[in-house]
Amino acid sequence: MSKIVPVGVSARHIHLTQEDIETLFGQGYKLTEFKPLSQPGQFAANETVVVKGTKGQFDKVRILGPARPASQLEISRTDAFAIGVKAPVRESGRIDGTPGITIQGPAGEVQLEQGVIVAARHIHFHTSDAEQWGIKDQQLLKVRLGGERGLTFDNVIARVSESFALDMHIDTDEANAAGAKTGDTAEIVE
Amino acid sequence: MSKIVPVGVSARHIHLTQEDIETLFGQGYKLTEFKPLSQPGQFAANETVVVKGTKGQFDKVRILGPARPASQLEISRTDAFAIGVKAPVRESGRIDGTPGITIQGPAGEVQLEQGVIVAARHIHFHTSDAEQWGIKDQQLLKVRLGGERGLTFDNVIARVSESFALDMHIDTDEANAAGAKTGDTAEIVE
Repeated sequence: MSKIVPVGVSARHIHLTQEDIETLFGQGYKLTEFKPLSQPGQFAANETVVVKGTKGQFDKVRILGPARPASQLEISRTDAFAIGVKAPVRESGRIDGTPGITIQGPAGEVQLEQGVIVAARHIHFHTSDAEQWGIKDQQLLKVRLGGERGLTFDNVIARVSESFALDMHIDTDEANAAGAKTGDTAEIVE
Repeated sequence: MSKIVPVGVSARHIHLTQEDIETLFGQGYKLTEFKPLSQPGQFAANETVVVKGTKGQFDKVRILGPARPASQLEISRTDAFAIGVKAPVRESGRIDGTPGITIQGPAGEVQLEQGVIVAARHIHFHTSDAEQWGIKDQQLLKVRLGGERGLTFDNVIARVSESFALDMHIDTDEANAAGAKTGDTAEIVE
């Protein structure tokens, strides 16, 4: 039985705490939804921020909502070189010891102490998908993308939850190296 | 016997005809060498140009010398999206039907009619390396890069010549997707 998963390409984006949202956009400010994402309850917000590294900045970084317990900027390695921040490859939420960054919004600025990562490629599995395919949470998978720039990624992290929808998340460097786009499919080969 | 090759990461760069060099830098102008490249006789020039797409521009694109029979801009897919040019994945020199671009130098401007590509990943083999490993010119190889972001690339083109030195060339998207840098090694696995 082929294990086929849809691919979603993550452009640079930021998650913010409610406190940081209020510093950046004003007291009591709530994010507004631009469009829903593949994971239930998650959305791209209308709001964007400026992020400033030592060598450059990005002017319109999309905020993903809802608010989270810790602010986190997810960029590609290409982005990291471009703005001059040494972001390590990390699973979302594992930000101990990662570098910080300056975030600017219309109402103020936040000096993030840590939270800049290059997101480790991963697949979200609903518990039922994972059970059907015999895949465990945190298992490292090999996943093939086909086509002209076909390749097989090692170390794709399985993340299993009742609240997840089946979706493989790669960043823009990975998508561009594979010639892939959101809506393509990939095959778990090992 | 393991088939191990050194990896070279190609940042965006441009090759120019002598005619285009003179339009951009002045009549009779000759490129000057900044540093030699891995392939014998090839060099990074001190000179850079501006390239302008429909959505953006790159201000300092390095020229690689010596002058060539056709001008050719090699960018990553990330770059292609950034400046708004639909560059296809192509082997160097195969530029029929590719898009053009505006190039600006200190002495003038060139409207390139065609020549913007995303370089297809490839390995340069000296004829003796290829013979030793039973690899033919234009053969498509699978090549593995290890590490945290380890992956295996399909469709790596073998290019064999007496004038080549053993080196695998990938672009910045591919290097960043693999967490690789110039000087790393890769293994031909198939």
